[in-house]
Amino acid sequence: MPPEEFRAAAHRAADLMADYLQGVGAYDVVPKIAPGAVRAELPASPPEQGEGIDGILADYKRLIEPNVTHWNHPGFLAYFAITGSGPGVLGEALAASLNVNAMLWRTGPAPTELEETVCDWLRQAIGLPPEFAGHINDTASISTMLALAAARHRLPGLQIRERGLAGRRDLAALTVYASDQAHSSVDKAAIALGIGLENVRKVPSDKRFRMDAQALRVALRDDRAAGRLPVAVVATAGTTSTTSVDPLREIAGICAEAGVWLHVDAAYAGSACVCPEFRALLDGLECADSIVTNPHKWLFTPVDCSVLFVRDPKLLREAFSLVPEYLRTSETGATNLMDYGVQLGRRFRSLKLWMVMRYFGLEGLRARIRSHVAMAQVFAARVDAEPGFERCAPAPFSTVCFRAVPEHLRHDPAAQDAFNEKLLAEVNAAGPVFLSHTKLRGRYVLRLTIGNLRTEARHVDAAWELVLKRAEFLRNAKG
Amino acid sequence: MPPEEFRAAAHRAADLMADYLQGVGAYDVVPKIAPGAVRAELPASPPEQGEGIDGILADYKRLIEPNVTHWNHPGFLAYFAITGSGPGVLGEALAASLNVNAMLWRTGPAPTELEETVCDWLRQAIGLPPEFAGHINDTASISTMLALAAARHRLPGLQIRERGLAGRRDLAALTVYASDQAHSSVDKAAIALGIGLENVRKVPSDKRFRMDAQALRVALRDDRAAGRLPVAVVATAGTTSTTSVDPLREIAGICAEAGVWLHVDAAYAGSACVCPEFRALLDGLECADSIVTNPHKWLFTPVDCSVLFVRDPKLLREAFSLVPEYLRTSETGATNLMDYGVQLGRRFRSLKLWMVMRYFGLEGLRARIRSHVAMAQVFAARVDAEPGFERCAPAPFSTVCFRAVPEHLRHDPAAQDAFNEKLLAEVNAAGPVFLSHTKLRGRYVLRLTIGNLRTEARHVDAAWELVLKRAEFLRNAKG
Repeated sequence: MPPEEFRAAAHRAADLMADYLQGVGAYDVVPKIAPGAVRAELPASPPEQGEGIDGILADYKRLIEPNVTHWNHPGFLAYFAITGSGPGVLGEALAASLNVNAMLWRTGPAPTELEETVCDWLRQAIGLPPEFAGHINDTASISTMLALAAARHRLPGLQIRERGLAGRRDLAALTVYASDQAHSSVDKAAIALGIGLENVRKVPSDKRFRMDAQALRVALRDDRAAGRLPVAVVATAGTTSTTSVDPLREIAGICAEAGVWLHVDAAYAGSACVCPEFRALLDGLECADSIVTNPHKWLFTPVDCSVLFVRDPKLLREAFSLVPEYLRTSETGATNLMDYGVQLGRRFRSLKLWMVMRYFGLEGLRARIRSHVAMAQVFAARVDAEPGFERCAPAPFSTVCFRAVPEHLRHDPAAQDAFNEKLLAEVNAAGPVFLSHTKLRGRYVLRLTIGNLRTEARHVDAAWELVLKRAEFLRNAKG
Repeated sequence: MPPEEFRAAAHRAADLMADYLQGVGAYDVVPKIAPGAVRAELPASPPEQGEGIDGILADYKRLIEPNVTHWNHPGFLAYFAITGSGPGVLGEALAASLNVNAMLWRTGPAPTELEETVCDWLRQAIGLPPEFAGHINDTASISTMLALAAARHRLPGLQIRERGLAGRRDLAALTVYASDQAHSSVDKAAIALGIGLENVRKVPSDKRFRMDAQALRVALRDDRAAGRLPVAVVATAGTTSTTSVDPLREIAGICAEAGVWLHVDAAYAGSACVCPEFRALLDGLECADSIVTNPHKWLFTPVDCSVLFVRDPKLLREAFSLVPEYLRTSETGATNLMDYGVQLGRRFRSLKLWMVMRYFGLEGLRARIRSHVAMAQVFAARVDAEPGFERCAPAPFSTVCFRAVPEHLRHDPAAQDAFNEKLLAEVNAAGPVFLSHTKLRGRYVLRLTIGNLRTEARHVDAAWELVLKRAEFLRNAKG
């Protein structure tokens, strides 16, 4: 692309981006299309001849932009709401123009050192001690997989890196522990690592959806007695359903006693620790062997940006480092980020996090996290005060689990589930808000979460009004 | 970030990007800095107060841009040279502004369907039959890991997903086969998957650095006889050292006979198949069970974009799909891309590939691949014609392996190695070009590769002139 053509197109793209971010609230959060609708508009085969960039950008505006789910919409209150903030978006754009693959220090000196630096900034920001070193992965799924691989590697005398797991008489079943509220990424890591789904012990959670530490202690003891080999415990700080936090300090004590690796999945709630007042909820976090937290979740950084902190990065390096001849370099004292995981190729992800942390500053990050939590607390209080509704879990951060309990269905939990499922569909069909759901103790529960910088009190109010109205409509429809 | 502030900053970023891409050739390819130099310029702690975007962009321009290795430089002739072309960069910028996580169809309808469509475009472009379905991963390392996990999952009656690999009497050592020229990602996948490095059989390669298919046949037979369990063969189409291509059709026949999965690592040479005349070099590719090819390598798409084609995507889904309640949706007939691998979160990577394929068209892509190959052939011919130099491997695509063989060292291979290592350091220290190296049959070899759209014949000529001059200088310095 000739330089001046690129410049003009980049300015057009800048306006497309700015227009979108300015006007995103005018869309329905979820586009009202059926599967296949976009595909039907796309040619079945690639073009033989090249096309002008203006036509491509026009198609983007016409066909792509309206048909994404608008994660930037102020009414996006589902899953974990996220924000690709302005400085983060610009960081991604600049990184794309550099197109650096920072697999080695030599192939990306500034990206390597910026990654080390901003991970250390983040470490300080969330109050972790200096012995933790971080690096950036694409997702928490990969971060957790790498952490469990390091735990597996640490098992003494087994040489799993060299000898693998299969066909060995000297190996017991490797076992991983997580609460019944833990994220599916623990299961996926167990599949990938050859541990197996059956060997992920789902430790029961208590009434507040936190891992029952005593049950963990018993499971570890019984498994050892039965000849199993515990590899790691994955505690969660901010579970996906309710944002509950496992009792980290108690679990850490049990892990230390048992000589088992403690990995903490703080993908969501780690960001809350930029506010000192939330650190008490994650008390004991600093006792972990590894911690994942995702700035792309609640720290206003575009996907993908997942930071894995490890107390002893040497273990990760020993588990994964393999330097083929064509990647040998002579620099001493340099970090080669490819040594810390499976992936050789590495995008320049630290740039966006650096720009986000500088643009907002710690004060700005804290203020926004606090505002999200405050809005969620107001919403929780409304649920609590509303007859015909109940809150289904504590709301320590910015996520509220609740359900309608219509009077006429008070004694029929299955019918309540069906009612709430319909209620969610009705609310989401309206357009301006998007909530999600989960199941808690077998019951269908609605979930509202706040994590987008564009979300203001009025959007949360509107969501609540809509829930009330649609619930009333459904109650009346039933008679 | 207020909308008008974002708009202004996005236009500034557009100019930064355009200026960079226009002027990148004025930099040395590799910045002349020592490890720690960038870090020393960065504050040790994150700022408390937020800062203006202009200052951040100024620091980017001052501290980051000059201190990356310039993969966009026309003189970048190392590793595999890549290009983040204009339309690809704009695709990344637009995707960042959407900030979609297309884990589910519902959370990204257009991204999901565009990914299906452009992967099918790419399938057609490289001449694969319609039974292959593709999806996009971040890296070939992950694509290969997923392919091997699918192969492992296909082993009959073993329930590895459920039961794992460890502590089982019914499992032999799982074994994977690749040539001694295969990429380290095969080894890393074997570590991650619990197969173990010892269980990656490095099948010898022939004089042209292609897997010796008969040696593979023998290894499979002997291993089975010894009670091992072959899982997969990884053949390479475009090895990292020499871009040799394993005899795919012959290997496919052996795999079919042995009932073993064939994965083809075509991360580099897959792109060459957009030109029909190169498909003969990859004859038999269509017999594979899975194929990885990286548009971020030689198809002008910014990192990261690795496409994994699988003949039977159901196997990948069966190996990895896990749908927790909070991600259950009701759409029928929709693909949920999270089901095909470890990672739940997914960036909108198909947008850039769509824009690249439309902007260049198949004709434009072919013309550029051909031009790169032609320049490499000219370079190879110069090496062949030059006394005191020798070519060290066939150059079927755009990569040439060569070394100096100075007369005074003709009978001292170790001294030749040292000479070539010094020669590479001298050439790279000059600034305008960046070559890399490898070892072939134990000998130190220089590597020149062409993959950047900015590279013209004059840059390759200049590289050769520089090599000749520095070699002469070194010869003279020795006396």
